[in-house]
Amino acid sequence: MARRLFPLLILAAIAGMAYAQSGFQGFRFTSENEFIRPQEYRRWIFAGSSLGLVYEGEEQADGAERFHNVYINPAAYDAYAKTGEFPAGTVLMLEIMTAREKTSILNGGRYEDQLVGLAAAVKAPDRFKEKWAYFSFTDPGKPFLEKAAANKPEECWTCHKQHGADDNVFVQFYPTLRDARGKGN
Amino acid sequence: MARRLFPLLILAAIAGMAYAQSGFQGFRFTSENEFIRPQEYRRWIFAGSSLGLVYEGEEQADGAERFHNVYINPAAYDAYAKTGEFPAGTVLMLEIMTAREKTSILNGGRYEDQLVGLAAAVKAPDRFKEKWAYFSFTDPGKPFLEKAAANKPEECWTCHKQHGADDNVFVQFYPTLRDARGKGN
Repeated sequence: MARRLFPLLILAAIAGMAYAQSGFQGFRFTSENEFIRPQEYRRWIFAGSSLGLVYEGEEQADGAERFHNVYINPAAYDAYAKTGEFPAGTVLMLEIMTAREKTSILNGGRYEDQLVGLAAAVKAPDRFKEKWAYFSFTDPGKPFLEKAAANKPEECWTCHKQHGADDNVFVQFYPTLRDARGKGN
Repeated sequence: MARRLFPLLILAAIAGMAYAQSGFQGFRFTSENEFIRPQEYRRWIFAGSSLGLVYEGEEQADGAERFHNVYINPAAYDAYAKTGEFPAGTVLMLEIMTAREKTSILNGGRYEDQLVGLAAAVKAPDRFKEKWAYFSFTDPGKPFLEKAAANKPEECWTCHKQHGADDNVFVQFYPTLRDARGKGN
């Protein structure tokens, strides 16, 4: 029996490995179309970081520059690397972090201190006619929200649509995505 | 036979999933103890980013601030989250990137542009009596090196030993590691 079993065991092992790497992690909604905050996004693919970005017509809220970290779920990254397109199921998580300076051995420069904001961009054409929807989990002074309804298009979507380098995504700011785009896995 | 086979198939599938998540990715040396540059580090866990860090006694080479991105291999992250200690096999990759500003829709702020430096911190007590060793793959104006010999202790190790918040690692600058430390998986 061992000889007949062996190929099946190999196949099952491969299926297990494939399972572990497949699926759009974090792509979960409530029955009211609210997006459920992904818990494990720090295990996703890092897309890029920035400090103090201020968009046209905006001003920094309190004058203090913030770091932005962006992560993408691995299956979406893989698809983007392979095809150059963001698939339905893409989730980009945005972390907003305070910047700290002149501590420890530093003579200059700033590093990331406290997480103060969390938001998501989600591609879900079956759920939103604009294809992409944007969600904020930030509730100042309180823990992050467990789920959020989509922001109005004019709050995020319009600017992403106009200025995102590729399909509503600010790929121009994300070196990891720029480097991977359409280059295979 | 199917009934006897099923549990074995399940076990093999689980083994496959475990394999996909286990092992210290990127922990590879040549027979001369050179460290082989990990190719897939952008799939690892992002530890934190900073801009323009200048250490005591140093000056910024050309006055231009750089972003630093740090990644850790997933098995080391998991162990650190579980035990609060970096296991043998830990690899931290450091990316050095130029900062760009005032392009696209930006009124202010800087984002990551070109990758100009690449280095690794590796915990390998069996290979290096200092436990940690440091490697640079940067060869200005040329492609990154495929492998590198360890830097002399006084080039990196001494400062990491003195100022790293935890076991030679600048955890004080890495929010992801600070948050995960010893908190389980």
